[in-house]
Amino acid sequence: MTSDRLRKQIDFIVEIDRLKQVIRQTYLMDSSRQENSAEHSWHFAVMAMLLAEHTDEPVDVFKAVKMALIHDVVEVDVGDIFVYDQERMAEKEAREKEAAKRLFGLLPPDQAEEYRALWEEFEARETPEARYAAAIDRLQPVLHNYYTHGKAWNAHGVKAESVLKVNRRIGNSSTELWGFAKEIIEESIRKGYLKQ
Amino acid sequence: MTSDRLRKQIDFIVEIDRLKQVIRQTYLMDSSRQENSAEHSWHFAVMAMLLAEHTDEPVDVFKAVKMALIHDVVEVDVGDIFVYDQERMAEKEAREKEAAKRLFGLLPPDQAEEYRALWEEFEARETPEARYAAAIDRLQPVLHNYYTHGKAWNAHGVKAESVLKVNRRIGNSSTELWGFAKEIIEESIRKGYLKQ
Ligand SMILES: [Ca+2]
Repeated sequence: MTSDRLRKQIDFIVEIDRLKQVIRQTYLMDSSRQENSAEHSWHFAVMAMLLAEHTDEPVDVFKAVKMALIHDVVEVDVGDIFVYDQERMAEKEAREKEAAKRLFGLLPPDQAEEYRALWEEFEARETPEARYAAAIDRLQPVLHNYYTHGKAWNAHGVKAESVLKVNRRIGNSSTELWGFAKEIIEESIRKGYLKQ
Repeated sequence: MTSDRLRKQIDFIVEIDRLKQVIRQTYLMDSSRQENSAEHSWHFAVMAMLLAEHTDEPVDVFKAVKMALIHDVVEVDVGDIFVYDQERMAEKEAREKEAAKRLFGLLPPDQAEEYRALWEEFEARETPEARYAAAIDRLQPVLHNYYTHGKAWNAHGVKAESVLKVNRRIGNSSTELWGFAKEIIEESIRKGYLKQ
């Protein structure tokens, strides 16, 4: 007989399958289609695993990878909000908190507590791991925009000034990764992928 | 200036974006479409993170999660091979080894070595982490088949006997997870999702 504990874990695992249907503004690197939040979370987790040596402060890499894996599950209830959409970003916080309560609440109590706390830590950006995870979460779409010649930026009329402002957060974790992001943003401007 | 080391890491990160376009036989749990290997890898990594307490032997959970994240990147070069396709499974090994060499070879030498070794460890199924990761990699599609009323099984005429044989491997890592898998396989037979 399947234990109640495993049953709860499976319920969560089944529920988050819907993240594969939450469509982001970011395009795949070959521009063929927009990516979804599940595949974004995978790419983010791989990046977090590979790039941790570049942080300015030591980080617990597994903790950052865990954040990557669960950071977007709230979108199962609230959908993806484009980071440059200031109006919707304002209401985002309250709705996502509700979603975190419901979704992580499907897990057994100890894991519900652990993962909800991890998600809140990620959102608060106050620990080295949260700053690092937030940096990678920003770097990934910059990379996608560069390789798609600014497809998502241009679809929404996003200008260089906003891109620099929104992504400056990368520098709160890693001088080297922010240096790299600035390089490709500047190259995007030079090549006409990003308007000033 | 971006270091040569970071450049190599980014090259790998860009290359594996194509995993989002490798289509598997498994359907999303609402049956709307087949899933791709990137979102499968995400789901697998989340499951590996949440279910480790059920293994019969202690496992290094982060190591298993890393395996989940990179286990399918070889498919960027060779595509996904359906686990019930015995003919193609035979040639799989040699082609995937080549792909692992090329893809992980994009990384800086120390990481290339580390991740290629990790992928080979996963493939060999001889350590607790590899057995656990292999178990989750099998459990995930069983779960998807159950929720889609056997959609992938039936699309390929897969019978109960093969399903039990292919998934028995779950029991090499976890008696409890194999017990659960058997329960939903048996329920699938009873409900007519899976033919005998
Ligand atoms: Ca797999």
